Amino acid sequence: MKIILVGASGTIGQHLFTELSKRHEVVRASRHGDVSVDIMDRQSIEALYRQVGPFDALVSATGSGYFGPFDSMTEDDFYKGIRSKLMGQINLVMAGKETINDGGSFTLISGILATDPIPDGVGLSFLNGALNAFGLSAAIALKRGIRLNVISPGLVEESQEAMGAAFPGHVPVSMNRVVAGYLKSIEGGLTGQVIAVY
Amino acid sequence: MKIILVGASGTIGQHLFTELSKRHEVVRASRHGDVSVDIMDRQSIEALYRQVGPFDALVSATGSGYFGPFDSMTEDDFYKGIRSKLMGQINLVMAGKETINDGGSFTLISGILATDPIPDGVGLSFLNGALNAFGLSAAIALKRGIRLNVISPGLVEESQEAMGAAFPGHVPVSMNRVVAGYLKSIEGGLTGQVIAVY
Repeated sequence: MKIILVGASGTIGQHLFTELSKRHEVVRASRHGDVSVDIMDRQSIEALYRQVGPFDALVSATGSGYFGPFDSMTEDDFYKGIRSKLMGQINLVMAGKETINDGGSFTLISGILATDPIPDGVGLSFLNGALNAFGLSAAIALKRGIRLNVISPGLVEESQEAMGAAFPGHVPVSMNRVVAGYLKSIEGGLTGQVIAVY
Repeated sequence: MKIILVGASGTIGQHLFTELSKRHEVVRASRHGDVSVDIMDRQSIEALYRQVGPFDALVSATGSGYFGPFDSMTEDDFYKGIRSKLMGQINLVMAGKETINDGGSFTLISGILATDPIPDGVGLSFLNGALNAFGLSAAIALKRGIRLNVISPGLVEESQEAMGAAFPGHVPVSMNRVVAGYLKSIEGGLTGQVIAVY
């Protein structure tokens, strides 16, 4: 398969590249990857698809949102995540659904905070809930056998030292399990699923 | 209780006013209500709270989003709903959380399409999923015993004639049940719940 991996330079993205490149042609897309893309800019996403041409899978491991105190959250704190993790990933699907090959797949990323919240995580919870519902609904609207799933990882082990204190009682998940969740979507047959890795 | 009802002129809002005004002081807020508010404008929401002063419950039955074909959806179609149903309601909470009385409640509205999608409903599904996760997460971050719940109604009977064809297999719910869901949140003790009415 020809796979576009967006967010290839991140922690999850690097592990995905190592695994996927064993048996697929993987185009790494990031601000400074094989091809450059800024997911907060719809035109940049359209340019990515024009540059790469027909492909079989779009894999996203990218997007950020506000993390921190709720009381002082501003409207712009909400919108930063909307423009990045939410609409950045939605635009990856909307701009790519015509050029993806028949039976191709989109795999997006949300996260455990959609359903298992922490007080400082409101700015991520609502994005993750939106992405899960987008995946569920857009999957039944896509044509030509195109599939769409959303990976919802728990706190990954690599982030436990930096972030664990904010996630009381959360059991960290291994990067191997997160990568396995992606493989279910990319190489398997699922569609319209929130693939929980926790 | 002193209750601010936003979206008082809509179908659900009118039924809520009839029920709530039997035993509460209800301030109707809408573009042309007792007090005027445009939920797409954060400053208008702040003006509403300044005008009304301390209150015990904020009840929302408002907000719109894109409904229609998925293939032709534009980025702006997504953002119209983000600015209205999603951020309009989030801003009702964020701007009101300081002036609401101790133990007060916020009640927002999402909808069944968050988890039970239809092909033309992608533009609503993602908003509803975001609102459900916002309610779940913000409820544990609010202080002073302030509660927050989200009502998720199915297709209401009043909308069946106009909308039913787009909702195959959906069993319409009565307005009485929708109002009852709101009462659970407003007059009961729940918090952090998605109150499904379907």
